[in-house]
Amino acid sequence: MVDIIHRIGIKSPSTEVYKALSTINGLAHWWTEDVSGNEKIGGKIEFTFRTKAGDILGKMIMEVKELKPDTDVRWRCIEGPDEWVGTDITYQLSQQEDQTIIIFGHRNWREAVEFTAHCSMKWAVFLLSLREYVETGKGKPSPNDLKIDNWN
Amino acid sequence: MVDIIHRIGIKSPSTEVYKALSTINGLAHWWTEDVSGNEKIGGKIEFTFRTKAGDILGKMIMEVKELKPDTDVRWRCIEGPDEWVGTDITYQLSQQEDQTIIIFGHRNWREAVEFTAHCSMKWAVFLLSLREYVETGKGKPSPNDLKIDNWN
Repeated sequence: MVDIIHRIGIKSPSTEVYKALSTINGLAHWWTEDVSGNEKIGGKIEFTFRTKAGDILGKMIMEVKELKPDTDVRWRCIEGPDEWVGTDITYQLSQQEDQTIIIFGHRNWREAVEFTAHCSMKWAVFLLSLREYVETGKGKPSPNDLKIDNWN
Repeated sequence: MVDIIHRIGIKSPSTEVYKALSTINGLAHWWTEDVSGNEKIGGKIEFTFRTKAGDILGKMIMEVKELKPDTDVRWRCIEGPDEWVGTDITYQLSQQEDQTIIIFGHRNWREAVEFTAHCSMKWAVFLLSLREYVETGKGKPSPNDLKIDNWN
């Protein structure tokens, strides 16, 4: 199995970072504006990615598998791009010095394909958006996300 | 073996991107200002990372293993952080629409550790610096690189 992993530090208490990862409102401020569903354990959250004109680029549904306040969030992708279905998204938080450190994982890809490389880069950009949102109140969720290549 | 892979598009001809990856002058404009050595195949390039005050944060030596104009650059890390020694850095370029697409790889890590997650995120940030340099003439090489966590 193949994992994308990233490490980022956010200058904010872990409670604030956790809120951005575990609530519909938080998620809408850094990943995609178009998010809805049930944010509790066992709930399903639907994320839709659009162009600025409103056309749908992609959609995925995550089932919330784990929520440990201020330390862990885990989702399983149950609908979305073929390569994503069955993969897990994990966020492990810890407070270190003046930062909340996130170990991010998009885990259990069946294989490393070109789309994996795209998603790895794109996740990095969204984690920077998450940091910006938590530190300043304003992130860059889709459709205002930074485009990284000719795919998105 | 564990690989970090990223995909990024740069709005510039592949010749320009290749130059930024295969010459000492190019590398100094997006990865670290402190770079020296022999950029030819079989040559060794030394990259030093410093704080803004000039203290050394890290140093690595890459042996140039492959140079195919406008398509491939490959280095082997022969000195540096323990986890890096023996790993390979690869850049595969292709022209698609108005962009040069890079498939970047930092390949053959012995295992996925927290430092791998840090490096994955940090590589993403340096690839954005590379894009900025090629597209605008000004990147963010160390020591003016974007800090991503409490490690660097």
